[in-house]
Amino acid sequence: MHSYIESNKERFLEELKELLRIPSVSTDPAHVPDMQRAAALVAKRLEEAGASAVRVMPTAKHPVVYGEVRVSDAVPTVLVYGHYDVQPADPVDEWTTPPFEPTVRDGKVYARGATDDKGQMYMHLKALELMQHEGAPACNLKFLIEGEEELGSPSLEAFCKEHHELLSADIVLASDTSIVSADIPGIEASLRGLVYFQVDVYGANTDLHSGIFGGAVPNPANALSAIIASLHDAKGRVAIPSFYNNVRTLTKKERAEIARAPHSDAAYRRQLGLRELVGEVGYSTVERSTVRPTLDVNGIWGGFTGEGSKTVIPREAHAKVSVRLVANQDPKEIEKLFLAHIKRVAPAGVRVETRRLDGAAYPYSMSADHIGYRAAELALQTTFRKKPLPLGSGGSIPVVPMFERLFGIKTVLMGFGLPTDNLHAPDEHFLLKNFYRGIETIPLFYKNLAELWTGEPSAPSTATRAKKKAKEASTKTKKQVR
Amino acid sequence: MHSYIESNKERFLEELKELLRIPSVSTDPAHVPDMQRAAALVAKRLEEAGASAVRVMPTAKHPVVYGEVRVSDAVPTVLVYGHYDVQPADPVDEWTTPPFEPTVRDGKVYARGATDDKGQMYMHLKALELMQHEGAPACNLKFLIEGEEELGSPSLEAFCKEHHELLSADIVLASDTSIVSADIPGIEASLRGLVYFQVDVYGANTDLHSGIFGGAVPNPANALSAIIASLHDAKGRVAIPSFYNNVRTLTKKERAEIARAPHSDAAYRRQLGLRELVGEVGYSTVERSTVRPTLDVNGIWGGFTGEGSKTVIPREAHAKVSVRLVANQDPKEIEKLFLAHIKRVAPAGVRVETRRLDGAAYPYSMSADHIGYRAAELALQTTFRKKPLPLGSGGSIPVVPMFERLFGIKTVLMGFGLPTDNLHAPDEHFLLKNFYRGIETIPLFYKNLAELWTGEPSAPSTATRAKKKAKEASTKTKKQVR
Repeated sequence: MHSYIESNKERFLEELKELLRIPSVSTDPAHVPDMQRAAALVAKRLEEAGASAVRVMPTAKHPVVYGEVRVSDAVPTVLVYGHYDVQPADPVDEWTTPPFEPTVRDGKVYARGATDDKGQMYMHLKALELMQHEGAPACNLKFLIEGEEELGSPSLEAFCKEHHELLSADIVLASDTSIVSADIPGIEASLRGLVYFQVDVYGANTDLHSGIFGGAVPNPANALSAIIASLHDAKGRVAIPSFYNNVRTLTKKERAEIARAPHSDAAYRRQLGLRELVGEVGYSTVERSTVRPTLDVNGIWGGFTGEGSKTVIPREAHAKVSVRLVANQDPKEIEKLFLAHIKRVAPAGVRVETRRLDGAAYPYSMSADHIGYRAAELALQTTFRKKPLPLGSGGSIPVVPMFERLFGIKTVLMGFGLPTDNLHAPDEHFLLKNFYRGIETIPLFYKNLAELWTGEPSAPSTATRAKKKAKEASTKTKKQVR
Repeated sequence: MHSYIESNKERFLEELKELLRIPSVSTDPAHVPDMQRAAALVAKRLEEAGASAVRVMPTAKHPVVYGEVRVSDAVPTVLVYGHYDVQPADPVDEWTTPPFEPTVRDGKVYARGATDDKGQMYMHLKALELMQHEGAPACNLKFLIEGEEELGSPSLEAFCKEHHELLSADIVLASDTSIVSADIPGIEASLRGLVYFQVDVYGANTDLHSGIFGGAVPNPANALSAIIASLHDAKGRVAIPSFYNNVRTLTKKERAEIARAPHSDAAYRRQLGLRELVGEVGYSTVERSTVRPTLDVNGIWGGFTGEGSKTVIPREAHAKVSVRLVANQDPKEIEKLFLAHIKRVAPAGVRVETRRLDGAAYPYSMSADHIGYRAAELALQTTFRKKPLPLGSGGSIPVVPMFERLFGIKTVLMGFGLPTDNLHAPDEHFLLKNFYRGIETIPLFYKNLAELWTGEPSAPSTATRAKKKAKEASTKTKKQVR
């Protein structure tokens, strides 16, 4: 470990824990004050780390934290993206220790947001502190730390358009993803897109006695189940007509590459406590969870859910349903198909209302030839002493494809989490060894990027032809799925 | 109104409200102390009304209140059945006034249990007070007021077997059903049976991120929806194989009788706020809700059900499902078919556990020729000045078929509720006019029964051949469905 990190590691952890204690759950209106406290704390720490022009900037919903470090016109400008909001912590009673009381066990810090994304975002602030301590970063930096990632970043597109000049950069760097295992690094080369819906089914104007009325009136819970069942076919495929129309077919070479990634169905199954893995017929587990689209119910509720029995026909039933997309599916198109399908299959007698929740995300991919990918690859190779593997993530980071659409720039997804971190689940945690390793790796990324950018060992003053090369690099990245 | 009722009506109402204030929700273990308070209050009032040998008797779960009035060997003995337990009150926020703070509005008392069954059960205590005030009841009475009706009376069968001698009677009288409308009386001539299940579906050992894992792991909420959807076919029939095997086919005459009952689909639809009525193809609304079997989800839950979005694959999902039965379906047989069906359709990857909740109920029916039916018919005709209509109830009162199986006696279902009383739903209420009318009608029932029994105007001392006639009457009641 770098000596500066070694001698400050306790303070870094205590600072992170202070941030983790704030329940900045972006989806819950009750946590608006916590969102503001979290943003203020991130801004304070960013300034302390050496950023200038630090400010908390309003959006339609939760504020963005901005800050920058200006080094030279000759080196590339990196937009560092992260988020300070977290998922809800429920079911809270399934946590070993409370979600907002960060606790260290076995070298891991347990808390909601530990890995997604407070812990990983905070590495960038401490990396900046390290770089400033040693002189200056090898690139110009702009920090964009938002508070709506877990909602699908609904305000960020308008924010980026409004502050287009302020945010202009050559590339984005984000740490909000996972590597292969504690000591095997990886770089996410693709992300799935996301559209999230709520389906509300209404029957009679009141709960009804299931004896007196049963058989003669529509049951919203039965109707909702029929609707949800209609969303898959017997082969595990999404049964919405035209759903697969724009899904790019994987090449043999791509499938062979995916098959080479370290993965064991048996270990995966055991880890999850499953007797059997299921999914779309004809695809492997890794393919199913990264490069194939899928649909899941995220929540369902209606009627009597307490202890014992109650003979009632519920007046309404609800489900939250999300769809993951891959290249070249368009979330706007999929939204239309989903709404039309629900309308078509809605059983008689009930009233069905379907709406999209939060922002949608496009799918995304980055080639391993991209200059940013290579800068990350070299940096990770230095700190992990192993060449990182190209990975496909089944998750979605809506801002990544958005940066590409708005600014025409790619995002390097250099994460330090693990697939076993329980993100979005009880007992979320982050391995502290990789928290510190991340802080050490980030400055190397900037150094590598500046060198690859200028074609010379990093020395800002001698950098030339930077912009031109960046353009070339980014137009080479059209390969969409790995 | 009878002058004694007139001059005591305010006190009767206040006493009922005192009972309604006790949240005696039998299904919820947290309400065990309330169950005991309710039983104690019923026992106290029963004794005050003039019953002897009053006692609160333990069962495996909630206690039974017993009391009796012995008049003469020459008159029949009536077992008066009622229950002091109530359904859960949720969703509590949909009540206009709190469920356990009884409130009178527009001549109705609003509270959980107002009509089902505290209000109707309490009529019998006040009728006893009235009869004692005037001399004595025309029949021997035994009161059996239980606390598990809303659970399907799981302990009562064992209780009745244990106290077979104590409870022996010639007929049962219960007021736990509805009439046609405020001024049109009716007598329930059939009840549906009931089996209630909980289906629990388990996936991975933790909630999972729907991006990282979606597509590769089973989703319990999707699986549960598929299971529930498999329970009906496109014609609104229950799709469990062999489910209809023992359902007795209605005769043309029976269907014609049902069609004559006052009913308007349009009014029913409007009252319930429905655009369309749905159900088993080929049957009318009245048939669907009374003499045809049916299946309803009573509750469903799993995953994230809060505000906003959470991209999670729930580790488990659950549903409560009840099946209503008609003659000659056997709940034990249906339970087997249901469990086998769920096992067969359970999707791969998930673990499904299905269990019956609470006691099951057999279907029941009583002929209009039965002596008990006729005694009730005449009594209601006197107080309502209209001949009561024979009704089929879609609901289940498990003890009614149980009394028939255990004691070989029929139950007269002389209720005073209305189909619009919102029983099992928010804003449950009871029309006070019919609360008082019930108190007036009950003594007439006993008078009529004693007269029909002995073949002479009611005069206990001259009664003869009672037992023999009762036997004849009860063997004539084999017609199972009206």
